[in-house]
Amino acid sequence: MMTLYDYAMAPNPRRARILLAEKGVTVQRQNIDLRTQEQFSAAFRQINPACTVPVLQTEDGELLRDNAAIAAYLEDRFPQPPLLGRSALDKALVASWNWRAEFDGLMAVAEAFRNGSPAMVDRALPGPLPYAQIPALAERGLARIAVFFTSLDERLRDHPFLAGEHLSVADITALVSVDFARVVGCQPDASHPHLQSWRQRLSARPAFAA
Amino acid sequence: MMTLYDYAMAPNPRRARILLAEKGVTVQRQNIDLRTQEQFSAAFRQINPACTVPVLQTEDGELLRDNAAIAAYLEDRFPQPPLLGRSALDKALVASWNWRAEFDGLMAVAEAFRNGSPAMVDRALPGPLPYAQIPALAERGLARIAVFFTSLDERLRDHPFLAGEHLSVADITALVSVDFARVVGCQPDASHPHLQSWRQRLSARPAFAA
Repeated sequence: MMTLYDYAMAPNPRRARILLAEKGVTVQRQNIDLRTQEQFSAAFRQINPACTVPVLQTEDGELLRDNAAIAAYLEDRFPQPPLLGRSALDKALVASWNWRAEFDGLMAVAEAFRNGSPAMVDRALPGPLPYAQIPALAERGLARIAVFFTSLDERLRDHPFLAGEHLSVADITALVSVDFARVVGCQPDASHPHLQSWRQRLSARPAFAA
Repeated sequence: MMTLYDYAMAPNPRRARILLAEKGVTVQRQNIDLRTQEQFSAAFRQINPACTVPVLQTEDGELLRDNAAIAAYLEDRFPQPPLLGRSALDKALVASWNWRAEFDGLMAVAEAFRNGSPAMVDRALPGPLPYAQIPALAERGLARIAVFFTSLDERLRDHPFLAGEHLSVADITALVSVDFARVVGCQPDASHPHLQSWRQRLSARPAFAA
């Protein structure tokens, strides 16, 4: 069986858990306690020198050390249901929206959180190297989250899912980003009706409780 | 024939040009003059509301508005040579290294450039919305570029290409990032022999002159 190095409260491992659940793939879970900074332990650095979760370890011991790797691998090994797109155009839309959700969504939340939280002093970026907090970047992150919510709402006005007709990894990345924005006090409101309805539909799927 | 909305001097359109050339796909090119801010023109906003290049317009008029979309689309329509990986593991490694090249490489250079250059005042992020420069982010970008060069050098000590045995989109993203780092005065040196040798090999490929 594969092993997922995981942490329940963090957004990036949640992306992997949802993806696995939507694919119907069962894995062992190994908790890495980010509260006690276990990701920086000597033992975990052997697993991932970048000191981040998730990591998916395959049956033959290969280590997939980020969500990009995990999604590409799972789509090839477990093609059904397809979560990276079906036709060429569909694949393009999934890749594009996933990229936007990651850069404009998850990264904006991370910037706001890591540069603004007292718990994150000198950890403005993930990984083993210290980076000082930049207060202006925390502020910019908050501004970008608002832009992200608006862009999702506009897209979802005419499409049931971000890439079109089917659930994809882009929806997973975006939903996790929206949920995680709670940590910096940002949440969609009545001005984002399409985003809210999509969020409710996704949140009702069993996989999204993973 | 497909049309590439392009600008010769910018790193992101170069990624698309190299990918097309490695695939042997010929396109029409439509220059969008970033020096005169043509990306913000009403005409180009119809093509891409995000006001960025590259955009690839397909024969049936679909608009692929970022490199993520373009790479996914081209790999499906023109599978040879594969540039997003062959086996499941290979696809994972390509996705992972491409992601790292984008986040740790190209984004670090962009942060240093956009937050530090007098030409980029209020354009600290691409797109139509103004974002003020953050000098501390320019400094952090420079520090991250050095880390990126070291990580590439270590990886390329034992592998001919970033994902392993074959050229992939990860090499394209990384090489373009390394070349573009010139704009902020960062370049590999004698302390990066494996990076330098990889760079010479790639730069000699006809597609990389695209």
